[in-house]
This record gives sequence, structure tokens and C-alpha cells, in this order.
Amino acid sequence: MPKEKLSIVKIGGNIIEDKSSLKDFLKLFSKLEGKKILVHGGGKLATQMASKLGITSKMVNGRRITDAETLEVITMVYGGLVNKNIVAQLQSLSINAIGLTGADANCIISDKRPIKEVDFGFVGDVKKVAHKSIDKLIQADFTPVFCAITHDENGQLLNTNADTITSQVAIGMSELYKTSIYYCFELNGVLKDINDKNSVIKHIDSKVYKDLLNEGIITDGMLPKLENCFDALKNGVTTINMGNTSMLTKENDNFTKITL
Amino acid sequence: MPKEKLSIVKIGGNIIEDKSSLKDFLKLFSKLEGKKILVHGGGKLATQMASKLGITSKMVNGRRITDAETLEVITMVYGGLVNKNIVAQLQSLSINAIGLTGADANCIISDKRPIKEVDFGFVGDVKKVAHKSIDKLIQADFTPVFCAITHDENGQLLNTNADTITSQVAIGMSELYKTSIYYCFELNGVLKDINDKNSVIKHIDSKVYKDLLNEGIITDGMLPKLENCFDALKNGVTTINMGNTSMLTKENDNFTKITL
Repeated sequence: MPKEKLSIVKIGGNIIEDKSSLKDFLKLFSKLEGKKILVHGGGKLATQMASKLGITSKMVNGRRITDAETLEVITMVYGGLVNKNIVAQLQSLSINAIGLTGADANCIISDKRPIKEVDFGFVGDVKKVAHKSIDKLIQADFTPVFCAITHDENGQLLNTNADTITSQVAIGMSELYKTSIYYCFELNGVLKDINDKNSVIKHIDSKVYKDLLNEGIITDGMLPKLENCFDALKNGVTTINMGNTSMLTKENDNFTKITL
Repeated sequence: MPKEKLSIVKIGGNIIEDKSSLKDFLKLFSKLEGKKILVHGGGKLATQMASKLGITSKMVNGRRITDAETLEVITMVYGGLVNKNIVAQLQSLSINAIGLTGADANCIISDKRPIKEVDFGFVGDVKKVAHKSIDKLIQADFTPVFCAITHDENGQLLNTNADTITSQVAIGMSELYKTSIYYCFELNGVLKDINDKNSVIKHIDSKVYKDLLNEGIITDGMLPKLENCFDALKNGVTTINMGNTSMLTKENDNFTKITL
């Protein structure tokens, strides 16, 4: 029997921070056919809340250090404010959403990142996705909504990159489903010319990717994202789509599709 | 076939606010036999966070007014900080907890309280408990952990009293289970003499309750709690227990048991 389809959709800070963008996106998400999972970040809202509370966000090489105070803010903003408002809005669109951290139902277990040159603090690297637990929720007709928090099974919550959660959950669920990832971001897709927003590369496979790398077209910001994508594809994910939220509609084909 | 047992345990602010009390309680809760649900408030932590953010808690006749800013704080503190830390700690005790507001899985639907003499703001009165949705989670071997937030099915989260959530969830679940409520609070139970913490009334039924009322022993603070208890008992709940957290152990019988 062929595996059923499962879509894993990730939205970033630019959508979450703007109420009307979020509302528009959630409408599109609610209409997406078949079984689905939503993953969200919420970086800037956490930074804003930390600043209101007089907590300075410590950055090393452009990456946030998650000390105990910052983890509290992240738990409040990602796990509470953002996640629960998304869930309530999805319910109003007749999607039976259930908001989760990786601790809930023991869905995503991670290891606290070891201290090397930098101590990132309470940051977790995903160790295991409990795909059967997540599937119990899906089979019960719930739509899981994950925020960017995991846990270590010893009572410690950990801040985890939302892109990584997305790809790891998709890889885990690939045992049971034909999985597609949709990375919604501010661009229309992977661009041939960073200054031309319409220069979307519509299809990238391993060969095209190698060519793009050789031509120097893949820029710093996109490189880890695409590495992450090919890692997911090699581990069972069928298709990865990158573009703005309108790629969730069937009318728009102006986005980047990535396959092996 | 007799109904299976289900325990619904409620903990208040005094346990949540103290890390070591919370840890001790969660150990007891993890050892409680059979299927179970946890409900928590978190009042003072929300007040503290609001104050840190420069939001003044508005009170009318001793009751908090939930304006939009306060609802945000409650969503962060109850739904995020408190709920997710409880879930992570329960996971470390091998309880497969799943943290929920009433919006998650559409579990608890409420109506925004109508404006009469006082506008309580974003406060919800429970209208419906989706006992079948909650049971799907229980049947999947998850332990639901509810915070004191519900929703109106139109995208609005609402602040709802944790005692009310406890009794309404218990009433709802009584269709499927033989339900017992455990209200854990700072006293050893309902006291005959408020100045003697050992004057616990061990059993209150409808007749004893009437006598206690006539004798003027039930004080202002306890009256609504007990009214709420008898309402739950009349609507399907089997037993209600009130006392400190040690009533969850079998060694302690010094608490108040309430039956019809």
C-alpha cells in the first residue's frame, strides 16, 4: 500500500510577527489538503519580550545564547503566546490543532549542546523524534503545531532551531508517510540573482545543486538551509518546497521545489 | 462493565510558585495509580510577570480583570512557562504528559463572560467540555495537563478559573469514567475550626453539609468551593477530595472526602 501524504509546514518570524500576515497564512494552511503539521519559530517576539523584561539577548557570531532567563522568555513566548494563539485561530478555521513543545507527548528529545568554543546555554540538538507518538495525534485527527522547544527527558526544556525541528520531524514521520516540507519565508524561493526577487529557481535536484554551488550562486544564508534540505531528502523526505506562503495554494507555481 | 477510574487533580498557586513543593507534588502525582489529568493555575506568577512588564493588575471586588495585556501575560505564564515546565518534569518521571489549554484539541469551549455591573474582560465561562477529544489523548496513554485557559472557537483565548476547569472536565469525563477530583491546597482539608489546622472534617455528604451550613462553620472562602463540589457530584462526579498534596499517598487519610 502506498504511504499516505503528510505535509510539514514551517513559518518564520516575519509571518508570526505581523498579525494580518499570520491570519492570511493560517487560512492558506487550513485549506491545505491532507494530513499536516505546522512548525513555528518566533525569534523577534522573544527578543522584544526579553528586552521589555530588561534581559539583554547575548549573541555570539550572530547566534543567540540561551541562558536560564532567556529560556524562560522563549518558553513563555514560543510555547505560550505564539503557539496558543495559533492553535485558537486554527480552531476558528475548523482545524483541530494541538499545540506542542517537544516535551509534550515526549515528541522530540534532544541533547543539550556540548560546550566547545562557545557555551550556547540551554540549546538542544535533536536526538530522537517519537514518530509513533506524533502519529497517535494525527490518527486521532489532530493537527500538531510545534514550537521551537524540545526537552532532554530529564526535566530540562531546550531551545531548538525551528528549521531543524521541521526537517527532523519530517525525517521521523517518513517512516509512516510520504512527507513533503514547505519552508515558508520572505523570498519567493531560492533566487538565481539575489537582487531579482523573480529569478526563482523552480527545481533543484542534486545535480542542479552541485552546479549552483560551483557557479557560486548559493549564498551564505541559503547554504545551510539547502544542506539541511538535502540531508532530509537523503533520509526519507520526498519533496521540499521553499517560497512565500502562497506556494500553499495551487494557483502559484513560482517557488523552489527540491528533490534528490 | 463498570467504568474505569479517572483522577482529576488540581494544584493551586502555592504549590506552583515554589520549585521544591512543585517537584515533591509531581513525584506524588506520578505515583498516583490509574488514568489521571492534572489541572493547574498559576495566579501569583502571572501577577509578578505583569508587574515586571509594567502592567498593573486591575481588581474589582477582589477579582482580576483580564484586559488584552493581562491575557497575553496569562497565556505566556500559564500556557507556556508553568505548563511546559510541568510537562518536562513529568516526562522525567516517566509520565507521558501533554500540556493543553482548552483551545488545544478543542477540549474546553467557553463563552466570554457577558458585561453586567463589571466587565471582567477576556474571562470565559465553560460552555462545553469535549470529553471524547480528551479521551482520545487518555486512550493514547497521554496524561493531559490543563492550564487555566479556554477558548471561544472564534480564535479568542479566555482566562478561566482553574477550579471551574477541574470540575467541568471531571463532569464531562464522568460520561466515560468513574471520576474523582483531588483539590490540593494549603490546608489539610475543610476545617471545623479555621484556627486549628488539625480539625479536618473527614467526610462531608449532603446532610453533613447542610448541618455545617446551619452551624455557620463553612466560611466565605470555602462556601463557593463546596457549592462547586456538590454541583460536580450532582452531575456525575463520584468523589471529591480536598486537602494538602499528601492525600495523594495512601498513608495519609487526614483530608476531607466529599460525596453526595
